[in-house]
Amino acid sequence: MTPTLMKWWGWGAEDVAFSHDGKPELAPFIQRALGLDVRGPASGRIAFEDLEIPASVLPAGLQARLEEAVGAEQVSTDDRDRVVHSRGKSLTDLIRQRRGDLGRLPDAVVRPGNEDEAAAVLRAALDEDAVVIPFGGGSCISGSLEAEAGEPRPVISMDMVRLDRVLEIDATSRLARVQAGVFGPDLERQLNERGWTCGHFPDSFTYSTLGGWIATRSSGMQSDRYGDVAEFTRGLRMVTPSGVLAVRPVPSTSTGPSVREMVLGSEGRLGVITEATIHVRPVPSERKILGYLFPSWAAGLTAMRDIAASEASPSVTRVSDAAETAFSFAMREATTPLDRVKSTALRAFLRRRGWDLESMCLALIGYEGSSSHVSTQRKLTQRIVKRHGGLSIGSSPGRLYDRKKFDTPYIRDFLLDRGAPADVSETSAPWSGLRTVYDSVMAAGHGAFRRLGVPGYLMCHLSHSYHSGACLYFTFALNPPRDHDPLEDYGVVKRAIQQAFVDAGATLSHHHAVGTEHADWLEQDISTPGVAMLRALFEGTDPGANLNPGKIVAARTRADTGTTSDPAIGASNATPA
Amino acid sequence: MTPTLMKWWGWGAEDVAFSHDGKPELAPFIQRALGLDVRGPASGRIAFEDLEIPASVLPAGLQARLEEAVGAEQVSTDDRDRVVHSRGKSLTDLIRQRRGDLGRLPDAVVRPGNEDEAAAVLRAALDEDAVVIPFGGGSCISGSLEAEAGEPRPVISMDMVRLDRVLEIDATSRLARVQAGVFGPDLERQLNERGWTCGHFPDSFTYSTLGGWIATRSSGMQSDRYGDVAEFTRGLRMVTPSGVLAVRPVPSTSTGPSVREMVLGSEGRLGVITEATIHVRPVPSERKILGYLFPSWAAGLTAMRDIAASEASPSVTRVSDAAETAFSFAMREATTPLDRVKSTALRAFLRRRGWDLESMCLALIGYEGSSSHVSTQRKLTQRIVKRHGGLSIGSSPGRLYDRKKFDTPYIRDFLLDRGAPADVSETSAPWSGLRTVYDSVMAAGHGAFRRLGVPGYLMCHLSHSYHSGACLYFTFALNPPRDHDPLEDYGVVKRAIQQAFVDAGATLSHHHAVGTEHADWLEQDISTPGVAMLRALFEGTDPGANLNPGKIVAARTRADTGTTSDPAIGASNATPA
Repeated sequence: MTPTLMKWWGWGAEDVAFSHDGKPELAPFIQRALGLDVRGPASGRIAFEDLEIPASVLPAGLQARLEEAVGAEQVSTDDRDRVVHSRGKSLTDLIRQRRGDLGRLPDAVVRPGNEDEAAAVLRAALDEDAVVIPFGGGSCISGSLEAEAGEPRPVISMDMVRLDRVLEIDATSRLARVQAGVFGPDLERQLNERGWTCGHFPDSFTYSTLGGWIATRSSGMQSDRYGDVAEFTRGLRMVTPSGVLAVRPVPSTSTGPSVREMVLGSEGRLGVITEATIHVRPVPSERKILGYLFPSWAAGLTAMRDIAASEASPSVTRVSDAAETAFSFAMREATTPLDRVKSTALRAFLRRRGWDLESMCLALIGYEGSSSHVSTQRKLTQRIVKRHGGLSIGSSPGRLYDRKKFDTPYIRDFLLDRGAPADVSETSAPWSGLRTVYDSVMAAGHGAFRRLGVPGYLMCHLSHSYHSGACLYFTFALNPPRDHDPLEDYGVVKRAIQQAFVDAGATLSHHHAVGTEHADWLEQDISTPGVAMLRALFEGTDPGANLNPGKIVAARTRADTGTTSDPAIGASNATPA
Repeated sequence: MTPTLMKWWGWGAEDVAFSHDGKPELAPFIQRALGLDVRGPASGRIAFEDLEIPASVLPAGLQARLEEAVGAEQVSTDDRDRVVHSRGKSLTDLIRQRRGDLGRLPDAVVRPGNEDEAAAVLRAALDEDAVVIPFGGGSCISGSLEAEAGEPRPVISMDMVRLDRVLEIDATSRLARVQAGVFGPDLERQLNERGWTCGHFPDSFTYSTLGGWIATRSSGMQSDRYGDVAEFTRGLRMVTPSGVLAVRPVPSTSTGPSVREMVLGSEGRLGVITEATIHVRPVPSERKILGYLFPSWAAGLTAMRDIAASEASPSVTRVSDAAETAFSFAMREATTPLDRVKSTALRAFLRRRGWDLESMCLALIGYEGSSSHVSTQRKLTQRIVKRHGGLSIGSSPGRLYDRKKFDTPYIRDFLLDRGAPADVSETSAPWSGLRTVYDSVMAAGHGAFRRLGVPGYLMCHLSHSYHSGACLYFTFALNPPRDHDPLEDYGVVKRAIQQAFVDAGATLSHHHAVGTEHADWLEQDISTPGVAMLRALFEGTDPGANLNPGKIVAARTRADTGTTSDPAIGASNATPA
């Protein structure tokens, strides 16, 4: 079940695309929001044949070592392979690819078949002073997969696709030992066949791997129940310059600073993850995602906070602001006359209750487990929803969400085909700070649209709840005029939002990693000594800077170590604009 | 509410001691278990006045800098201060102190009053090439507080006792910002006054601090509910060679390898923790700890596993093996005739049910929250207990446990006064491995007793449950004859148990840290590359090795960096025997 490679210029398989067909309200909505007519033909993009692809500069000695390590057929210098492996799928990546602005391509794509082969590839790369960039599903949106511009050394993309097996399920401990290259759907298929689930469903699920989730500290839609990847990953194996790191799958340990937590989020800077031992749970006997409406964003946020502080433990807690609620409604598929009557009746009912329908917020709350557990959770939760003026609207929004949840990334290409960049930025903050973060981001985003003089849309949902705070997930789109560079305009908005995050005390990203695209804000987020600690870890573990250099923190020479301030910190090599 | 310093030779306040008075079954039990008559007089120990205390070698320049930093009255070179700050309270520490074998004392005990002062002390120490060892409650049992033998540089013990305030409670986010030097009881008092609790109750509670919990990755008795310290600690501040590290108190983040998790368990190797932002919860309206009996250890373990896999979420899950159950019963206080009748009736009842009373295991399960939550949890749990042949025996064992839970450390002194070393070793492993770990440790411990030819006792309880495994907490005691060195005999047993942990796939410690006493097993636990990563972090952050050197991993010169194997790794500077 090897997944096909994604488009070299966009998300997903070549033959899959998002369309507004069958969604009668969407085109008018986009027209209103962005002044963009999506009914016209899509603009063209450069053909693969017209790309100027620099030749691979793989030295013969290194090529021989790599072929010895994995077999000649697993060392690819094919142009399409190299192009697809050169970047992830950030908006910046998509725009540049579509323009034929390719950057520093890898010289070879190498696909080890097991851990020993991965270790041999790494050894060869270190011996020959090459750069190794691990590659999972290629869905990264933070710039973690691109070689540094002008990298003079050979660059190897180590694609882990062949390490795709669930090796062992320990039913007693509810642990599965899994190879790191397995894609989301294949992982779930292998687990489901034996009655288990990992329960990790990020938006990128279809095109992301276990190893990629670990390397970027991923979260999924049901992480409220199953935990973020940092929680459900216990054991780890990683090939490193010092040999194979083996973190035991113990439930908790006191062995100094957590090496397990150093691998999590390491983005290839410490080695290549080959295997993990992860929590699994029985496929739940019942699973419900219900829709709720709140009269305002403030009411929705406070309800989610109160649910987190209660004795209820839902599997999904999600509430959209009014702007995203309007977008969700615009995404509805063609409705029957009956649906329309119901919808009209609901709106009339809400108006009679005094709701301002422009401020209304859609929420989804999920429940999983035994039927008595689901019923208890639902009662506990609905009591809180009601206290905040919320209203249950049944299971159809949840069903639609469940069916469409992995389609979202395709929308970016749909809009980009029509000249409109759209992207996401997400963060987390304590409950008490969420409103400030939200208001600051809204002001920053809309301020950027205004300064640029472009129509723009900015919306948000709370996507994960924790004891002390939550993740706010922002989506934005803009429609620059023809005489603007969309990459530059996009960068202005993206930077304004990221800056608003850190200025408001929130973090630069809740689950999309640092890469190069968020590196500018790292020092403002984790402070100068935090960057110094990361640098110490990376430079001491990989003194030759062969392991995905420049990601998270920019490279620095050994001689600088120990200085307390460094203007280069945070100046990433690939800023978004 | 500044706590008094502990005894220089033992646990707790000078005027508090454990006694077998009022526990009529204890002396006979110890007689049977160890061949030791505790009714005789305690043996003497060296008087403080007879200690040979090396003079402080604090250079005048450094002393001036320190006095400038914190005021002259907070720079102590007093002998008793230096002796009490020279070590923690491991069994090895206690035996050596009682013998007058003092090791490398700190040259000064410095008590900063705030973060700026702590930073100034660190700056002075770095400028003058002195060693800084942070000191919280001094209750460490892994050797994290002792300077390296023969350390030629001045040694400063930085006692954080004056940083003892809860600075702020964010009720909306259920977070408290707290200074790191606060002791357990004082923290709870300040929180309780405002209706909150941290819920962290390690055995050392009375004499340990928030900063110490963080620096050693502590767990408490109710961590099943409140989380280990790694879970409930979100924000952090630490003075480091690069300035003040500030980790934002966000609920989850994707900013590369977690700097927060590098501070956790760092034992002073990266800096001095000054402040943390921690989860708090409202003091629960109901709190119950109930006693249960299981017919066997296997039944008790399996019940705990099934509870962890269920939809119940108790606050305490604890089950003792038969040996510890016998000890618990022997610790009972003088009973009334009615208690004796009840106890006799219970034993008769169990025998009629076919129980072997020698194999019986005592369990404690706790419930907290609203009364309906407690009642639901209790029902869910008791159904599982029953399925494994267990039997509820009401609230009196839980009440006794609650009342006596912080007295345990005093028992070591009681036994040591009579020549018998006693200590603990704890670990964690997946559920499927717990029986193997237990059986291996029992074989290793009893094998060691046999080889030494000394009477010994070894008992165990499961103390914390997680999704995929649990903590096993072993306690052992031995009664070496007069012609043996008790420290040597103790070391043989301790090492056998620790080796059994790592050989059976478990970890070297679940929550007591590495220090120097567990350093021998670190590489076997986290693998050579894991040690290399820790070393990279420590050496890069603290290139002069001024920060509590030698703890967790032994010091190594810069020139060695990058080698893949190092025979010195794991050879700690202070082995237990």
